[in-house]
Amino acid sequence: MKTDPRRLLLASYPWVQTMETRFADMDVNRHLNNVAFSRFFEETRIRFNGTLFANANADASPRPRYLVAHVAIDYLGEGSYPEPVTMTYAVGSIGRTSFRSQKAMFQNDRCIALCDTVLVHRGDAGPAPLPDALRSRLEAFGLKG
Amino acid sequence: MKTDPRRLLLASYPWVQTMETRFADMDVNRHLNNVAFSRFFEETRIRFNGTLFANANADASPRPRYLVAHVAIDYLGEGSYPEPVTMTYAVGSIGRTSFRSQKAMFQNDRCIALCDTVLVHRGDAGPAPLPDALRSRLEAFGLKG
Amino acid sequence: MKTDPRRLLLASYPWVQTMETRFADMDVNRHLNNVAFSRFFEETRIRFNGTLFANANADASPRPRYLVAHVAIDYLGEGSYPEPVTMTYAVGSIGRTSFRSQKAMFQNDRCIALCDTVLVHRGDAGPAPLPDALRSRLEAFGLKG
Amino acid sequence: MKTDPRRLLLASYPWVQTMETRFADMDVNRHLNNVAFSRFFEETRIRFNGTLFANANADASPRPRYLVAHVAIDYLGEGSYPEPVTMTYAVGSIGRTSFRSQKAMFQNDRCIALCDTVLVHRGDAGPAPLPDALRSRLEAFGLKG
Repeated sequence: MKTDPRRLLLASYPWVQTMETRFADMDVNRHLNNVAFSRFFEETRIRFNGTLFANANADASPRPRYLVAHVAIDYLGEGSYPEPVTMTYAVGSIGRTSFRSQKAMFQNDRCIALCDTVLVHRGDAGPAPLPDALRSRLEAFGLKG
Repeated sequence: MKTDPRRLLLASYPWVQTMETRFADMDVNRHLNNVAFSRFFEETRIRFNGTLFANANADASPRPRYLVAHVAIDYLGEGSYPEPVTMTYAVGSIGRTSFRSQKAMFQNDRCIALCDTVLVHRGDAGPAPLPDALRSRLEAFGLKG
Repeated sequence: MKTDPRRLLLASYPWVQTMETRFADMDVNRHLNNVAFSRFFEETRIRFNGTLFANANADASPRPRYLVAHVAIDYLGEGSYPEPVTMTYAVGSIGRTSFRSQKAMFQNDRCIALCDTVLVHRGDAGPAPLPDALRSRLEAFGLKG
Repeated sequence: MKTDPRRLLLASYPWVQTMETRFADMDVNRHLNNVAFSRFFEETRIRFNGTLFANANADASPRPRYLVAHVAIDYLGEGSYPEPVTMTYAVGSIGRTSFRSQKAMFQNDRCIALCDTVLVHRGDAGPAPLPDALRSRLEAFGLKG
């Protein structure tokens, strides 16, 4: 993931939200726990999907169901409490039945993690083609720069 | 706890902070999980203590250690995601070596839980008298009204 | 809770299960976190209810719904990882629409916490009388000795 | 990860442990949550390291410190509660300052997830060569078959 230098820059991402950290996100090492990073990326995905589908209400019914098929995280630095984290989201490659998200986690102006996720559009009989309307929305959320 | 009607009113509390909810705070019932309520009250206690001792740096050294000896929660309503919750804190009765906190959790203008906690000041040989300087600070955080 | 000396003895409880602890149950203090204690008591309640209603299939349909109205925990000692904990359950006082559970948490042969919970039987229009069949089952799970 | 067919077979792994699931591991979809999968893999790594270094006490002092630099998970099937999961661990490629773990998660005789992790040996001034004694221990934990 680190091969694209844009991935480490906050300004590259079309979707950005700040999230609070909690005491419970730390482990015995007094840093944000690795699994807590996963939880922040989960929250990022869910909030982004909320944005995406809230805007797609007119033309996507029923709301598409996605399954997370793959998650990969690069841990680049330690996270701390109680400072907030800034989470970012971009859409990467878009396939026939799935697409890839490109996320990052920033704290104190440093990128402390990258996360790539593959989401599969799921119909009643397995992977299903991405709806055209969704595809064009996804294309609007690519990395900038 | 519910016998004091001030406990249900946001305006009664001298310390108030809003906190974000997370998808992970919900359980299979699609509401904020009971244990997640405990986690919000834990975060409230820790943030309040941060306030309390940040202001007490001049006269409390070393920083007093507290142990949670007792926690009681009244569940008054269901909580939901993604709306934030508003957490409140007041100091209740103050004893020789311990004091009681009086907390509440609000969401969408309703009080959805109350929490009372007993915190014991702990010295090297067990419970130790509360420092006088701390006692006077605590007295400033009683319920209002 | 501590006023009944039977509460501190493993042998007093009619229902006992051992549970694994996890690295993630610890916080920055390297002990089992207070909220993790709540999670162990939640798991205890859910497993006990599974036992209770599995045996009650013949005469309780639909399965009664319970809401947790109150939880109180006395923290008596620190818990550690990776040793397992032993969780216990007894039924306390039984009212018209609710009953009280009396739980405890043991580790390394010490009682490290007690937990009392009030569960309300919930019908479509609020609290509903406990079914007679359930009441007699609950009576069989009182503290021993 | 799925390109090596041994990865999907329990018998391929030199280290296997069963772990309890919890009600709290489920999310609103009534399956084991994706982040809970990460937590099971974290627990697997920590227990395996306990095994590895417990046996290495004679020749590894001070205990090496590892940082997780990368985690990738393939989600292959849904997990459920309350059945336990069976977690497995093997050591993959071993580099100069890091090694790769190859983990899997089974439930009800199906492989429901694979996880690869890169662990970096960390000295005071950044990545440090793996100790020879550790390297030979790691080599004993490769995939079988």
